Order: sequence, then structure tokens, then C-alpha cells
Amino acid sequence: MDIAKTLHNNLLHQDFEDAGALLSALSECQSIARNYAKLENGIAVLSDLVSNKSYIFYGALAEMLALARGNTEKEIDSIWEEDILGCIIPGDLQAKYAVEYRFFQLLKQLPIKERVNYHANIRLRMRNGAGIIIPVIHRIFYLYSLPNSSLGLTLCLYQVDYSQQGRESQDNFIVNTANAELIRMPLSPANGLLSEREREVLKCIRQGKMSKEIAGILKISVNTVNRHRQNILAKLMVDNSMEACRVAELMQLI
Amino acid sequence: MDIAKTLHNNLLHQDFEDAGALLSALSECQSIARNYAKLENGIAVLSDLVSNKSYIFYGALAEMLALARGNTEKEIDSIWEEDILGCIIPGDLQAKYAVEYRFFQLLKQLPIKERVNYHANIRLRMRNGAGIIIPVIHRIFYLYSLPNSSLGLTLCLYQVDYSQQGRESQDNFIVNTANAELIRMPLSPANGLLSEREREVLKCIRQGKMSKEIAGILKISVNTVNRHRQNILAKLMVDNSMEACRVAELMQLI
Repeated sequence: MDIAKTLHNNLLHQDFEDAGALLSALSECQSIARNYAKLENGIAVLSDLVSNKSYIFYGALAEMLALARGNTEKEIDSIWEEDILGCIIPGDLQAKYAVEYRFFQLLKQLPIKERVNYHANIRLRMRNGAGIIIPVIHRIFYLYSLPNSSLGLTLCLYQVDYSQQGRESQDNFIVNTANAELIRMPLSPANGLLSEREREVLKCIRQGKMSKEIAGILKISVNTVNRHRQNILAKLMVDNSMEACRVAELMQLI
Repeated sequence: MDIAKTLHNNLLHQDFEDAGALLSALSECQSIARNYAKLENGIAVLSDLVSNKSYIFYGALAEMLALARGNTEKEIDSIWEEDILGCIIPGDLQAKYAVEYRFFQLLKQLPIKERVNYHANIRLRMRNGAGIIIPVIHRIFYLYSLPNSSLGLTLCLYQVDYSQQGRESQDNFIVNTANAELIRMPLSPANGLLSEREREVLKCIRQGKMSKEIAGILKISVNTVNRHRQNILAKLMVDNSMEACRVAELMQLI
């Protein structure tokens, strides 16, 4: 399945009982988004996953991308701002979805109060109507979770990446800013998170093979297969092999 | 004179008539600073130049630096937060003052409504009690100007520089985020903004020599001297040669 669609379903098909409390948080989160757009001159999108709505705040980046057309704020009936997403060059958009999907899975497993310590950081290239490429840092925060632990409000920030101008480097990661722990993300499917051997093991797992069989095929010991299996689960941040296959497929790693 | 002292005098000895309006902006600016500290887990310092006070908001970076000691907010009777500044390694602190001084001079010349489009971006190395070096991005915004054009409220942000971990590069600049125009700053006095020839010309100017005399000394044409003179003014962002000498001395360029 397409990763954008999977992400869409995961975000919107959470259990949204108890969503009343979100309303009281909404206006403070809107003001945070508005201030980011103003001070950074970027674009801030606050998405309400419960109501499937987004509040978009436009700084000067929106004009550089020929978006906004005189608006400073807009409300839409979707969590996806197609105009903004349409400016991202396709390979980078896939990378964004892959990071975002993994970020969502990671945060779902964390206690509510720890979630605001994390954000995802993605380098994107965006393109305006005239075809000029603008290097952008895209960051994703989950600002608000419902009492039942469902994620409720997402803040997506887009800012021009000044420090990278003229450089080629790309660097996508999830960070826990409370302790500076970084989770680096693969730059692209080719520049993989998994080693060649790990991908071989995972392909065998996907075919329904057991550890002993895999050991025979790859001419390694069962212990080694199991070590690879553990490393794969850790790298993909999943609990079991079935989930590992699903995530790796979505990320086009196997 | 010491650049920190000059900066101190420049910031605090503005004309602060009409300062009443600042109070109404203060609480919104405090909430912006509070949100930055919370979302970025950095340190945000909002300084009120009129009252010579600072409001400090501590995120997790404060704990990494062994500052804060359980506080999340603090108010002090100074625009300089000595504890925070004391964590910056000395060479980087000098660079910060040089950028900050130039940023202040630049903003003073701009119309009030354009000022919020600018910020200064400085890479710093900060050190905690145990001697561990943390790479930090330090950004300075002027959030509020008085009706008479004096600068009133400064926001200083300190955030861990995740993208730079393990790299050596340094990159200080002032940016106009409304049009993405970058003004790059010298990394250090040695890595100079001015060319060797420009420094020679400026030293002659400081000695009170006229263009024709300088041309004779350096064995170049008067036109060339005047071209250097114009480039020097542009690079230092000043209006006349006397100001150029003063700024260059402060920045230890001559």
C-alpha cells in the first residue's frame, strides 16, 4: 500500500473518544503556529486529526512559493495541505512520509507527557511556480494528545534552510530534545537503514521462512539470523517481524 | 573599547521616551519566549532594554548545561544572563557580541515594521560544568520597537544544533526572512570580512590620511582607493569612514 495513504489512515482512524478537551487546547496551539509563521517567516500548519481540519499560517515563504495569494491564514477541511505538499519535489515528499510514518508509530508508544519532547526534522526541496528550488527545513511536532492517548494536534513547520544554502547534504532525523538523543533516518531507500544482509533476512521472513531455514539459505548460524532479526526490529522500531515487513515495504527498503 | 561594553551602552542608552506601549506587548512576547523554550527544549531570554530586565525560560538545554536548578522561569535585573553567557566558550562569545553589535546597528537603520523580518544566527559552543561541549544555535530577534524607533524587546534563543553534530563548520549570519537575503558574518577576526588590501586602506584612513595620500603609500590609483573605501563601507554596513574605523576596531579587524 502507498505510504501516504497508510499514514492518512493511521492518523485519522485513531480512537477519538474524549475529544472534547482538544477544543480548549486548540486556540493556544493556533497562537503558537501563528507566532512561528510570523517570527520565522515560514509556513505553519496546525492539523486537527479529530475534525480532519487544518489551520494554515503563512509567512513570507508562502510568497516565495507563490502560495497564499495575499492570505495570512486559512482553514481547510483536510489534514493535508495539497498546495504546500505539491511544492515538495516528489522524492523528498516520499522521504517526508516515511519519516512522518515512523514518527507517528514512535510517539504512539510513548507516554503522553514525553511526546512534546520529540520532533521530526526533514530537509526538503520545495519548488515555486517558476521552478526555482528552495531548500527547506520541515519539522513536525505533536502538540496535543487526547486523554486516551490518541494523537490530536500536529504542527508542521516549513522554514527556509539558510545554513544549507549551496550544500548538498541531507539529514533527516527524529530527536528527543529533552536528552538530545537523535534517531537518524535513511536519506533514501538506496541509502538504506538496513544492511544488505539484514534485507536478505527480512525478505526471507516475508516469505514465511523460519530462522533455521533462513540460516540454511544464507549459510549462517541460527544465532546470527536471530541477531539480525533483533537488529531489524530495533532499527525499524517495531515489536515483531510482521510489523517489520510492513514498515520496510512502506519505506521501500525491501 | 570592549565590544561587550559598547554593545551594553548602545542597547541601554537609547532614547526611551514613549516606553509605556512596551508594557502591553510584554506579556505576548513572554508567551512567545515561553513556547520556544517548551517546544524546542532550548533556553529563551526575553530582554526588556527599557527596564534593564530579562525574563528567562528554561527548556531541557538548561539542565544539560547545569543551569536552571529546577526553575522553569526566572526574572533578573539585567539584560545579560551571566550564567548562560558563562557557558559559551570565550572565542564564540566574542563572535556573538560582534554579530549582535552589527545586528543592532543594522536594525536601528530600518523602518520599525521591517525589523521583525530579521534575525541573527550564531553557532556557539557551550560547555557544561563537566566540560562537555554542546553545539548550539543562538538566534536573536528584536520583537518590539518603541514608537520613537528605539529597540525595546530582544528575544535570544539557544537551541542544541542537532544537524551540526560531529561537524566542524561554523556559519554566522544575519538574515532577512522576508526575502531570504543573507548577510554572512566573519567566523573570527582572523578569518576576516575585509581583504588584506581593504585593511591596509582602512588603517590609513584611521590615521587621518586622504585618498590621494593613501594611493601614494599603497602605490595604487585614487580610483582604486575609493573603490576599496566603498567596499569597506558596504561590508561593514556603515555610512562613513569614521564609523567604519570604529566598527572594524570593535570587531578586531584592524
